[in-house]
Amino acid sequence: MDGKEAAGRKAIDEIHEGMTVGLGTGSTVYYFLEALAEKVSAGLSITGVTTSQRTAELAGKWHIPLQSLNNVERIDLTIDGADEVDPSLNGIKGGGGALLYEKLVAKASEKRIWIVDSKKVVKKLGAFPLPIEVVPFGWKQVEAFMTEKGYRPRLRQTPGGQPFVTDAHHYILDLHLDFIGNPKALADELDHVTGIVEHGLFVSMTDKVLIGYSDGHVGTLAKEK
Amino acid sequence: MDGKEAAGRKAIDEIHEGMTVGLGTGSTVYYFLEALAEKVSAGLSITGVTTSQRTAELAGKWHIPLQSLNNVERIDLTIDGADEVDPSLNGIKGGGGALLYEKLVAKASEKRIWIVDSKKVVKKLGAFPLPIEVVPFGWKQVEAFMTEKGYRPRLRQTPGGQPFVTDAHHYILDLHLDFIGNPKALADELDHVTGIVEHGLFVSMTDKVLIGYSDGHVGTLAKEK
Repeated sequence: MDGKEAAGRKAIDEIHEGMTVGLGTGSTVYYFLEALAEKVSAGLSITGVTTSQRTAELAGKWHIPLQSLNNVERIDLTIDGADEVDPSLNGIKGGGGALLYEKLVAKASEKRIWIVDSKKVVKKLGAFPLPIEVVPFGWKQVEAFMTEKGYRPRLRQTPGGQPFVTDAHHYILDLHLDFIGNPKALADELDHVTGIVEHGLFVSMTDKVLIGYSDGHVGTLAKEK
Repeated sequence: MDGKEAAGRKAIDEIHEGMTVGLGTGSTVYYFLEALAEKVSAGLSITGVTTSQRTAELAGKWHIPLQSLNNVERIDLTIDGADEVDPSLNGIKGGGGALLYEKLVAKASEKRIWIVDSKKVVKKLGAFPLPIEVVPFGWKQVEAFMTEKGYRPRLRQTPGGQPFVTDAHHYILDLHLDFIGNPKALADELDHVTGIVEHGLFVSMTDKVLIGYSDGHVGTLAKEK
């Protein structure tokens, strides 16, 4: 068992009968979905709200009942992955390109838990490139502005060399920052840039992190009350 | 001649040989485009950058040379309309649904001029509903949040009762605020809301306003240096 699988399967303990559950995206969430599908098949009744086309397809294949975000009042709990997490529970998300829907689902959730392999836990964010989702019309203006700021943007592309297009029809620029001194200040700054629909900085947007280790054990990082 | 036509035709005086010109959207801009087409037909050489499908079609029909925002380094001057303007040159835009592209083009412009009928000039913004462009996935979450804030959102619809879809594939919520006490504070607040791609508040984003009156004369409101 690797760390992703350990964390992913552990998260199933948090799911209870009747819940509306936000379903994240990515390779760690895959293991959670697999475990969830087993529970549903054994009789557990929950409603899932997906954060990407990819997760919707997986959940559909595994017969997990789904509802769209626009059709639920609120979400009890969301289980999602992260590309980096710091000790203050700030994170970078969007390596899989689903940051916008993931943030929308997170915002609508009462409680949020991230599941990560232990290698994702870092002292300071920024070694992982920070994705920003941008409007295709004029994305080069945003790119130029980010370059001017020293943020080293790179347009995410498909293996065929075309711009990667998100589920919401936007492009992604990955900012090669190396080091993010103040995640909140950077998030505020990016929020104000016209043409950036959303960014992958999740500041104080999770309540708990389940950290999976390669030996199969799972640690916890939780918000101080 | 009505005020729109007076302001629209007056703006042509600002256009000079060789300029890259941002072309706004709307019924006042229509008159400017008509005047511009006459100049181009008479030999003026400019490059236009459009802010909507609608303006692109009009400009194409009138043989105004165009380039997309991603293919220009900068724009010398943008001529656009506004739905409301206050004495501090703050405005509401987006009645025609083009606020996102209009703001992107405005941001890329060295100089910006608005052309409006005198009825658009108000002491305080807010009688005109403020459009916010939202991500269709989860737009109801944004609507609920705006309602909670007392901003009275209403989904913009087509005459057929379907959601109005912008050129960038988003929806629009019109906020019925009646009165905006502090445009900058409201703009800041809306910038931070996940799911809002952009809003129609343009704070300190024009340099001059040409105001057309029904008797055909044109007044000017300009930024204090």
